Amino acid sequence: MQTYGYAAYSNDSPLAPFKFERRALRPNDVAMEILYCGVCHSDLHTARNDWGWSHYPIVPGHEIVGRVTGVGAGVTRHRVGDHVAVGCIVDSCMECDQCERGEEQLCRNGCTGTYAGRDRITQAPTQGGYSKHLVVREEFCLRVPDGLDLAKAAPLLCAGITTWSPLRTWKVGPGSRVAVIGLGGLGHMAVKLAVGLGADVTVLSRSKDKEADALALGAHRLLVSADAEAMRQAASGFDLIIDTVPVKHSLKPYLPLLDVDATLVLVGQIGPLDELSTVPLLFGRRRIAGSPIGGIRETQELLDFCAQKNILPDCEMIRMDQINAAFERMEKADVRYRFVIDMATLSAA
Amino acid sequence: MQTYGYAAYSNDSPLAPFKFERRALRPNDVAMEILYCGVCHSDLHTARNDWGWSHYPIVPGHEIVGRVTGVGAGVTRHRVGDHVAVGCIVDSCMECDQCERGEEQLCRNGCTGTYAGRDRITQAPTQGGYSKHLVVREEFCLRVPDGLDLAKAAPLLCAGITTWSPLRTWKVGPGSRVAVIGLGGLGHMAVKLAVGLGADVTVLSRSKDKEADALALGAHRLLVSADAEAMRQAASGFDLIIDTVPVKHSLKPYLPLLDVDATLVLVGQIGPLDELSTVPLLFGRRRIAGSPIGGIRETQELLDFCAQKNILPDCEMIRMDQINAAFERMEKADVRYRFVIDMATLSAA
Repeated sequence: MQTYGYAAYSNDSPLAPFKFERRALRPNDVAMEILYCGVCHSDLHTARNDWGWSHYPIVPGHEIVGRVTGVGAGVTRHRVGDHVAVGCIVDSCMECDQCERGEEQLCRNGCTGTYAGRDRITQAPTQGGYSKHLVVREEFCLRVPDGLDLAKAAPLLCAGITTWSPLRTWKVGPGSRVAVIGLGGLGHMAVKLAVGLGADVTVLSRSKDKEADALALGAHRLLVSADAEAMRQAASGFDLIIDTVPVKHSLKPYLPLLDVDATLVLVGQIGPLDELSTVPLLFGRRRIAGSPIGGIRETQELLDFCAQKNILPDCEMIRMDQINAAFERMEKADVRYRFVIDMATLSAA
Repeated sequence: MQTYGYAAYSNDSPLAPFKFERRALRPNDVAMEILYCGVCHSDLHTARNDWGWSHYPIVPGHEIVGRVTGVGAGVTRHRVGDHVAVGCIVDSCMECDQCERGEEQLCRNGCTGTYAGRDRITQAPTQGGYSKHLVVREEFCLRVPDGLDLAKAAPLLCAGITTWSPLRTWKVGPGSRVAVIGLGGLGHMAVKLAVGLGADVTVLSRSKDKEADALALGAHRLLVSADAEAMRQAASGFDLIIDTVPVKHSLKPYLPLLDVDATLVLVGQIGPLDELSTVPLLFGRRRIAGSPIGGIRETQELLDFCAQKNILPDCEMIRMDQINAAFERMEKADVRYRFVIDMATLSAA
């Protein structure tokens, strides 16, 4: 199927229109028209080949909401007309222990990225959601529950699941004391989801500037990390800290906030951290972990939870041809809190 | 009670004889004659005030085995003549949630170190086990089970419990895949204890030099961390890595060895680590933690386990007046694997 979208043609050129082929439907494939696609920091990193795995031209986008336009002969989960969603992965081996546990993102044989991956059968490069159509294996296609705002649901597929998964892994529930570092696309979802789970939620920020925003998102308070006395009083006060900061930074101010056996989970930065001391880890049996997106079953659980609780990202809708400006604003953290591309604005011309 | 031992008189002088007072027995105190005392890296750090908390003169030693010589009026746990042991802590608040859980080492109000601490009643500095006698609150006095070699039991009180506690916290048992980094006082106990628990145990070392030693301790194999191909094959192969390295180092070679949700637990280094990348943490949901010694109940459990399984440290017995030479050799890792001072060699002169 011929389709079209926006691609990066090199690591230093702006995204521009691109015509390309989606594969013909395999028996277990779903074809969809993409209605909305969120704009994730990973899209920008990939356009620029910051992680060294980009092929060009590359179509970013892995927060995808669409409508089914066709299904392969063997498809049982989705029908034409259904509202569906696709996140960061479009395939995995489906045979290893991790896949069997529903943790396809941790597939022993390597899951297939929605973009910058390789099709497991043809080895063709995968292309993402900044495009009009997508063809995807049915097991990696989520149901969008009735009642979930289609336009705003898209960021749940990466920002949402990336914060939901650690909340579930570390069993956050009523009464859990959760702190969130960084109030961007991931951080604002972490706050909403933790609140939705009944946790007591604190936003950590260098200054008081974001207090109104934090409270508006449902957080119970903002803790100013530059306030030494407030930080001292908050020591050992959290069961889980979700660190969404996407750049090199120090964990030093935050580790003492963890209670015994509690965890700071990194979900934002992919790369180096500042030098670390073991002292707060040893004297408090504290923990640091990383967590990557989530599995398909967990992502479906998230979508169902958000529909039930009416939890949605705060989105700023853009046209497809505004993507380069959106990338620039995202780099300056000038978005509350996620850009979503309205794919109706993408024309074939 | 007048007693005597060896003390550091400053941060740059060798240990030398020292006469001092042990407190009169309180109703819940046990007095003991010290028979053996292990020599721990912390003793050396404290003598030199590397951690900034030493008072002078200071008597190191927190791997203590002795015989009860007197008990306070209210003591119920120990009787004169019993063989007993004292580890790294001699008091805690006994009221907080951690103390109530038997995790006195994580006391919310700060536990009292066997040396370099302050008595909770008089604020007098605490003095350790390089001495003839000790007076200690009965709850912090362990029973040495019948059949445990008194001379070799001492290192269980710090090197032993420091490695036992994470083995228990992370539920190591038959079939667990455990790796140990560093084959010193802590590392050799980690190997023996993990083997005792039925784990499959690998020693990680930069070269093959220590293979025979590792196998002699009961490890199932040695993995050479400089062998890139062997390390690649071992990726994701461990449930727990116990890192006993007591100096600044990099975790980079080791993190990829952790399986999904598995933990590298730091027990050796108290201070900075080399710069860390989040990549192996995120892509594998791997974890880093610290663990400090263990609680009293857990320490008793360890002593009982070692008596039952006949697990003992490999010790080199020294005379009290050899302590400065022992410190020098310990700094060069020239000990297999723990020095133990025979206190019969300590004279009052």
